[in-house]
Parts: sequence; C-alpha cells; structure tokens
Amino acid sequence: MADVLPEAFLRAVAEGFPADFLTREPSELQEYGRDWTRVHTPAPSAVAFPRTTEEVARLLALCDAHRVPVVPSGGRTGLAAGAVAARGELVLSLRRMTRMEPVELLGNTVRVQAGAVTEAVHQHCAEHGLTWPVDFASKGSSQVGGNIATNAGGVKVIRYGLTRQWVLGLQVVTAQGKVLELNGSLEKNNTGVDLRQLFIGSEGTLGIITEATLKLTPLPGKQDVFLFAVPDVAAVLRLFREARRAPLLLSAYEFFTDKCLARVQRHRKLRSPFEAPSGCYVLMEAEGKDAAAVEEWLGSLFERGLVTDGTLAQSPSQASELWALRESISESLSATGLPHKNDVSLPVAGLEAFCSELDAVFRERYPDWEIALFGHIGDGNLHINIMKPEGMEKAEFLAHTKQADPTLFELVRKHGGSISAEHGIGLLKKDYLSYSRSPAELEMLRTLKRALDPNNILNPGKIFDV
Amino acid sequence: MADVLPEAFLRAVAEGFPADFLTREPSELQEYGRDWTRVHTPAPSAVAFPRTTEEVARLLALCDAHRVPVVPSGGRTGLAAGAVAARGELVLSLRRMTRMEPVELLGNTVRVQAGAVTEAVHQHCAEHGLTWPVDFASKGSSQVGGNIATNAGGVKVIRYGLTRQWVLGLQVVTAQGKVLELNGSLEKNNTGVDLRQLFIGSEGTLGIITEATLKLTPLPGKQDVFLFAVPDVAAVLRLFREARRAPLLLSAYEFFTDKCLARVQRHRKLRSPFEAPSGCYVLMEAEGKDAAAVEEWLGSLFERGLVTDGTLAQSPSQASELWALRESISESLSATGLPHKNDVSLPVAGLEAFCSELDAVFRERYPDWEIALFGHIGDGNLHINIMKPEGMEKAEFLAHTKQADPTLFELVRKHGGSISAEHGIGLLKKDYLSYSRSPAELEMLRTLKRALDPNNILNPGKIFDV
Repeated sequence: MADVLPEAFLRAVAEGFPADFLTREPSELQEYGRDWTRVHTPAPSAVAFPRTTEEVARLLALCDAHRVPVVPSGGRTGLAAGAVAARGELVLSLRRMTRMEPVELLGNTVRVQAGAVTEAVHQHCAEHGLTWPVDFASKGSSQVGGNIATNAGGVKVIRYGLTRQWVLGLQVVTAQGKVLELNGSLEKNNTGVDLRQLFIGSEGTLGIITEATLKLTPLPGKQDVFLFAVPDVAAVLRLFREARRAPLLLSAYEFFTDKCLARVQRHRKLRSPFEAPSGCYVLMEAEGKDAAAVEEWLGSLFERGLVTDGTLAQSPSQASELWALRESISESLSATGLPHKNDVSLPVAGLEAFCSELDAVFRERYPDWEIALFGHIGDGNLHINIMKPEGMEKAEFLAHTKQADPTLFELVRKHGGSISAEHGIGLLKKDYLSYSRSPAELEMLRTLKRALDPNNILNPGKIFDV
Repeated sequence: MADVLPEAFLRAVAEGFPADFLTREPSELQEYGRDWTRVHTPAPSAVAFPRTTEEVARLLALCDAHRVPVVPSGGRTGLAAGAVAARGELVLSLRRMTRMEPVELLGNTVRVQAGAVTEAVHQHCAEHGLTWPVDFASKGSSQVGGNIATNAGGVKVIRYGLTRQWVLGLQVVTAQGKVLELNGSLEKNNTGVDLRQLFIGSEGTLGIITEATLKLTPLPGKQDVFLFAVPDVAAVLRLFREARRAPLLLSAYEFFTDKCLARVQRHRKLRSPFEAPSGCYVLMEAEGKDAAAVEEWLGSLFERGLVTDGTLAQSPSQASELWALRESISESLSATGLPHKNDVSLPVAGLEAFCSELDAVFRERYPDWEIALFGHIGDGNLHINIMKPEGMEKAEFLAHTKQADPTLFELVRKHGGSISAEHGIGLLKKDYLSYSRSPAELEMLRTLKRALDPNNILNPGKIFDV
C-alpha cells in the first residue's frame, strides 16, 4: 500500500526527535508490522521508538495534526491482528520503554513503563514474594502495555481474574497528545467515571498506554499440579464441577484434546506421562488446604470413574513438565501447521449444552478436518483451532474457514457466548463483531471512538470501522 | 424551584403508563427527593415507579424528547447527594423492580432487577452457600442498582474488591431510551471496550441500570472477629502491617476512634468489651488457616506492645456485637449530631505520612472541634467526620466546613489521594472534583457525558456541570 506519511510530518519528526527515533528499514517494517497472526501482509510506513511519555505525547500530537494513522506495538504476541500495520500506518513501538521502578512493599504495587516484558515484571516482583498474576504462555515476549490494552486473560484467570483487576494506575496518551494520569495507586477512588476502564481492552483505539502502576499479590503457597486423562469434553466438564466443590483453591483448570497433545509431541518432543492415549486431558493447578483431604478426593475420582488416569507432580520440575504440555500448544500448532483460531467463551452454566452441539457444527462444516480444542474451560473459554489440511492451498483454507465461521458464531450467540474471550477483535474478528455486540452497543462504541479520536488516528480499522 | 415538567410530557405519561405510575404527592416528593445527606432541600416535580425495563425505556425516551431531567433513585442511602432531586427533576425510583431469579448454581450467578435490596440478595444466595460480597452498614436499605451505579465499597473490599468486580451482566437504559444488554453472564469477553465499566460508578449520569447478573462467591469459611485497642492512628497502621503478614486471610480491617465509640454508646447503648478507654480501636475479621498459628500471633501482639487490649469473639453473637460497634457509627453520628463527612483515600503506602500531617490541618481549621475518624484503613480509606459544635447554627457550620475543606483536599492531593474513596461525588463534592481529576480528565469526562447524553437529562449537575 502507498506510503501515507506526509512530507511535513516526516520533517517535523526529523527536527523534533533523536536521529534513531524512526526507522523505515524494510526488515524492521516487516518485523514491527505484524503480530503472531499470519493472515495480513505487514506494510507499515515507518516505526517509531520513543523513550519517554513526553516523546509519545509529542508524536501523537503531530500524528493528529497530520492525520497519520498509528498502530501501537508491544510484544506483538497478539492473535487477532490488533497490532498489525497493513495499510501504511506508523507503528509506535514501546520496546524502549522498559523501566521498572522498585517494588513498593507497603502498598504491594510496582510502577512500570508499558514496554516492560510481562515475565520481567514477574521476576522483578518474585524476589519480594509478590507477583503480578497476569500469566500466559507468551509472557516471555508480551509487554505490560499490550497486556492492559488487550485486557489479557491467560491461565490463572480462574483464581485471579483478568488483567483489568490488576491495574491500579494508568498513564495514557490521548489521540490529541495529552497525558492522562489515571488513579495514581489508589485502591478506592469513586470520583466519577473510571477512565482507566475505557483504555483497558480497547486495543489501542482510544489512547496509548505508556506507564502503569500494577497491583501485586503475594506469591501463592505451594501449588499442586495434576494431569488427568478423561475420555471426552463432557467428562472434562463433569470433573470441573467436582473440582469446584473439592477442598482446593483452584488456580488453573485447563484442558486439551489428544490432537493438541500429538502436535506438542511432534514439535517439542515432550512425553505424555500416561501410557494409554485418551481423548482429553485436564491440567489442574490448586492449593490444597489439607493434604489428607486432597488425597481422599483424588482417590474418589478414580473410584467413581471420573478420570481414567491421573498424575500429581512430585517436584517443581515435574510440575513444569506437565505445564509445558499445556503451554506449548499454541506454539506447536503454528509450528507444525496453519491453524485457524477461534477463541470463544460461554457462560459456565452453558458449556455443556454448547459443547454437545459443537460436534454437529464440525461434522457439517469440517468433515474429517483436524480440530485442536483446548482452553481455559474453568472460565468458559474454549480455543478452537481448525488445522489446514495437508495439500490445501492457504487461500482456499482461509476462504473455507471464513465461510464456516458464521455457523460457529451463530451457535456461540445462541448460547449467550462471546466470539472473542481473550484474544480481542483486531482485524481478524471485526467482521463478526455483531455476533457478540448488539446494534445499540455498536452505535455506542462508535460514538465513544468518534468523541475521543475524531480524526481516527489511533489503530484505525481495528475492532470496527468508524 | 419551579415545576419543570411540560404539560405535553405529563399528558404522554398519563396516557402511556398505569394510573399509579407517577406520584406528585408532597410527602412522597419529600421522601424520594433526598438521600441520607441533609444538606439540600428535596424538590422533585414527580416520582415515577416503573415495574419493567420496557417502562423505563419508554419513560426515558419521553424525557429525552421533552428535555425532562431525571434523577435515578435506589435505596437512597447515598452520602454524596447523588440521588437528591433539588431542582424540580423527575425522580425515577426502581423500588418496584425487585425481582430476583433463582440462583444459577453451575455458573454461580444470579440475575436480579436493580431495585432488589442488597441484603435480600445476600439472603437469597446464602441458602446455596453463596454470597454477593458487596457488604456495608446500609445493606438493609440500599439497592443493587445503586450499589452498581456508585461502585459501592464497604467493609469487605480488602478481601473481595469493589462492586465493579462482582457484576457480570448489566442491563442499562440509555438517555435515548435504548436498552443495552451488556456481557450476559460471561467471565471473559474481549470484544472491544467494556461498556459495563462506563456505567459502574457513573452515579446515573450516563444510563439507568435496570437489571444485573451478579457474580457470586462461596460464603467464606469460619471467620474470626477481633477487636483491638491501640493508642493512636500510627498504631492502627503498625498493626495493619503486621496483620498483612500474619497467617490470616483478612476480610476486614476497620478502625474507629474513641469519639466514634462514644457516639455509638450514646445512641445505641452498646457496650465496649474493654474496661479502660483507648484512643483507637481496630475491628479485624479474618479466616485463620491454622488456629495454633493465629493464637501464637495474637500472643506476640501483646508481647511486642502492638496492642493495649484485644478480644476475639467466642460466638457468632459476640461477633455480631463487635461488628455492631463498627457498623453503627455512621447512623450514630447522624442521630446524635450533624456530621460534615469526608471520605478520602490514600495510597496504602502513603497513609502514615498523610495521617501525621492531618492533625495539623485539624488544629488549624478545627481547633477543639469534635472529629470522628473511622474507616476501611486496609484499603487506604478514611472517613473524616467533623461534628457540628453544640450551639452553632447549621448554616454557620456548613459555611465553616466549606471554607476548611480545601485545606484537607490539598493535603489529600499532595499525598496522591482521592477526595472521594467510595461515597462518590454527587452534588456534595462536585466543587472539589479538580482536587482528584486533572483538567485533561475533566475534559474527557465532559466529552463522554456530552456524547452519551447530549440533552443532559440523566442526573444533570451531579459529579460536574456539563
């Protein structure tokens, strides 16, 4: 696509910012123009690397004046093409803004710049016995700003909730280049509409997050990590109901099918702890209040036929091995094939009814295709990966899945679900937004966007078109 | 103030709604035109009592067309005059919308209408071992819709967070009379800006909440309730630091001064469990993980001189008696005098520095006045009640406190605090909003209000003037 950066804008950037502020190097455009999706061709006009909030503010004021579209860019681990620049936009990368202040031990908080890597924050806090409980497989690359802008979910939501709950203060630069300092480090602050909430999960369409004060929590006590083998999804849900009533504090209840395990074994050469194959697996992490009671509960699972096999990690390294089976799935699917991803959620109470109808959709739309199901089933969240059949052209595959998606989304809508539980909408799901948002909601979303970003410079075309 | 209801509006209401829909009875105008504040004179033009969301929607569409200002009205237990109708507004009372659906036991949720009383929701859920953990002294009168519209805090925030965390689905009627169904009963739903968050804590200025799907949590295990006597506020904070490190899961850490206790004893004839008087008291509720460890910890508090006296409730009725000392304060202050209330919050890490400077403000502005301090100190939240001196006229008292407030708010701002932790802004604090919100934030708040309620019919003049 044509370069959209006006000469006057480029001149102003050259005069007002350091020499290494902007790059137009083709390899960097390629790298910074994409996220983990592989559907769109990256085509940004330039990439800016600010070092301070002040630079971000000045840059955005310039962009607004010159109508330059901006794609904010964190660790680019997104799965909805929210950070893809495919139409000549300016990419604003936060990767130079990685500062982390010392952990505040009275208030249990830490102030960081938006470019701090999630896992680096974990390490920074762990030495004080604290953690920021936002946790998922891509934490080694993802950044705090992106976590917040996408209201990231992950593997610990069942215990800790979404990213939204763990942000005390937020520094945001508006489309006009104004800096908002929201909420400081207050637990309670009822002084009108909470503007933080507008930016959390807005995928960079309303403002650019530059710093945050994160709320921390004590590292959990000793965690037991279990892997169970069960025959099918119905059994996964039956076991979940039992687990919620068990003498345990659940911090993860994840499931995956045999198809996922096979891809992980192929790509990562990991071994299953079980001899016999099984249809589904459940990874459960929990803090047991009473070891004897947990033991008894476990025994009863086998007696009552709720699981066909099971193992409890006997050491931290065994626990890591079990977790690796779950956390390698996304990477392994992409490394060994081309997945078409759907990330849906259902009311927890509606999961069984939904899953029992899901097979019919697959049989109708994808007879004999490989479908890799996994997800955070304890939050009602199911990742549905349709794998491209060997030998089929990518374009044909994308066309087929595009045609088939509405059948799935109709089923999601019928059961009161969401077409995007945690991945967001970005470019990838925007055509389907109306399956989860009513016309009245879409109108209000557009009203907000027009009011806060009248020139439509912030991540334009993401989530919806104005 | 003059009646602001146009004839054509009244005719349309008479024709389109049941006969008992609207009242203009003076005693009812008095009752429904006020909340628990006693600063403004209630003067609504009428009170409407819809039974359904459909009626609310039709009414608001009419109000918007006729430019009739609307004050939404729940249990009217607010302390910031957010539900006061002092300028001829139409009050929209939710008190006929009290339906509660059966508790959903798979998803741990319950759907209720906005007029359901908070305590009734607790009772409705308790029989299933579940609770909606929004809890405070006025729960017997307050309504769910008001709790959500004000993002209510209360006595359990330290464990459960604010109301915001416990709302899954929200049904809201907009200023134009459109019905929004937000988020169903989903735990995860990342499909663009979360519109629920706009209405939670907006004090009815952006929409009227008509129904909600509440997230429930298992009733906590056995709670220990402690009352400690300590000499002063510094000791309260020292003890808090110890309590956070103790082998306990805190669900409340509340404090009050001897002045509060004296008022409670005068009004409610309750007895203190301690023989010797003390400067401050701490009510602590916690779930002990290990009785012996708790015992040992308690002993060490005395040994190290961290408390001067202490008691642990030995029965549920003793626990209720200790809680009554804390929960009767607000009521007792109002029953025995006229309090000027401030409800500030500070970063937890900044509490000590703030409190050490607070005395100087009192000495300068209120020498020899009675000041009753209490609050949810574990969340950084302090209720500061200046009591009207005997013999001083109310008008003089209000003028004096109005003149003195800025000194307090300056100190709050200096320490990064909020001028309203949980009470909200309403009419009472709107003149001081700029102590907690920057010009850029105020501009964005106004932009949102103008975009969503262009005719300014929803609780106009509350929080700020457009």
